[in-house]
Amino acid sequence: MSLMDTIQRWFGGTKPTSTTTAPRADQPASSTGAEAPTQNQNKAGGSSMSIHIHPAVDDGVRPGRDDFSGGTLRCQCSDRPVEVTVDAQCAHNHVCGCTKCWKPEGALFSMVAVVPRDKLRVTANEDKLQVVDSSAVIQRHACRECGVHMYGRIENTDHPFHGLDFIHPELSRDEGWAAPEFAAFVSSIIESGTKPEEMEGVRNRLRELGLTPYDCLSPPLMDAIATHTAKAKGVL
Amino acid sequence: MSLMDTIQRWFGGTKPTSTTTAPRADQPASSTGAEAPTQNQNKAGGSSMSIHIHPAVDDGVRPGRDDFSGGTLRCQCSDRPVEVTVDAQCAHNHVCGCTKCWKPEGALFSMVAVVPRDKLRVTANEDKLQVVDSSAVIQRHACRECGVHMYGRIENTDHPFHGLDFIHPELSRDEGWAAPEFAAFVSSIIESGTKPEEMEGVRNRLRELGLTPYDCLSPPLMDAIATHTAKAKGVL
Repeated sequence: MSLMDTIQRWFGGTKPTSTTTAPRADQPASSTGAEAPTQNQNKAGGSSMSIHIHPAVDDGVRPGRDDFSGGTLRCQCSDRPVEVTVDAQCAHNHVCGCTKCWKPEGALFSMVAVVPRDKLRVTANEDKLQVVDSSAVIQRHACRECGVHMYGRIENTDHPFHGLDFIHPELSRDEGWAAPEFAAFVSSIIESGTKPEEMEGVRNRLRELGLTPYDCLSPPLMDAIATHTAKAKGVL
Repeated sequence: MSLMDTIQRWFGGTKPTSTTTAPRADQPASSTGAEAPTQNQNKAGGSSMSIHIHPAVDDGVRPGRDDFSGGTLRCQCSDRPVEVTVDAQCAHNHVCGCTKCWKPEGALFSMVAVVPRDKLRVTANEDKLQVVDSSAVIQRHACRECGVHMYGRIENTDHPFHGLDFIHPELSRDEGWAAPEFAAFVSSIIESGTKPEEMEGVRNRLRELGLTPYDCLSPPLMDAIATHTAKAKGVL
């Protein structure tokens, strides 16, 4: 299927794992019955406030500032923190359920946005940075001591998002970063251990926060990727 | 990103194509201005009735019959048509925008559902069938004369949908097949030539028909895939 090809092409893949359990299509995971809520998550119908989407949004999404033009990101080391300076407002900020992006302790989602790569520079302790997985399409530059991902960069010039670096705006104390707009790769949090029967509560909480849940990216971004692919194929 | 890995794992991939055009994230495809509607499609705001989603739904989605227990699918050959007999109601029927599934002439989407593979058998002119792409995860068995896909089968026993065959219920004259429930891989129709600025109209028309548009599969199916992956990894 072409979209699947496209997603794999731009975001990379891993080796298949094998399994002996094959869910039946007539028994979707979301209808397999309820269990007791865990510490961080509630089943559908429980208090949505106890679902920890991400610390930056759990008390409500704060709007960004139109006149904001960037700030400084720092890792969590108390000694010699890595510092990244961004001279631009971020775009397409969202919470993301994928298993590869860095998430703060206890959060179900990461928060991630993009900035032009030529507006981002490492301004302190760059020697502490290392690439998490050099085979990944997105090269995630992380602090080797605290583990925080400082920025993700795409080196493939054919990639539809080439020229944009991924950042976690929460690493900045500066106020005014553009607010998250939606939730991406929501179903993927199951791969981090969220129980399938808790997903309805998670999606309801996301909607309550104004973060429409998607199991891939948002329609405008998915359309942009498809357009890029169509142009590459000569269809458009 | 794990979801992307998962999708690629279960639905396969193709070789990357190269391109020199890189859409900017601050210029999503859906905001690049309007053009005149084409014959088959209208821009947002135009008459949604002129958007041809699929002949089986363009006049409204017809409900299935609870007591329906299967029927016969035939290819479009007038001479010696291939015949497939299904002894079961279908499940997860939906319209799909991906570029690999068979679509009737003039339709933006295919219509596709699943049935248990042990309830499907080829009952006439099997010699006319051939697999479209033997390297694909879904082996699409098509009539070599009229080109219609009669059924898609997954031979990988680790696949979350193993045991289910994909069919196009419209190939049957029997009435009562379960109605389509949603629209999958909507953004992918851009890869077949739909203009990005027409997507808002397409999504609105899908909603009007009660077929919620998704750019991947529906949340229950995406959750089922993630659950399968989580169990395979030992996370659940």
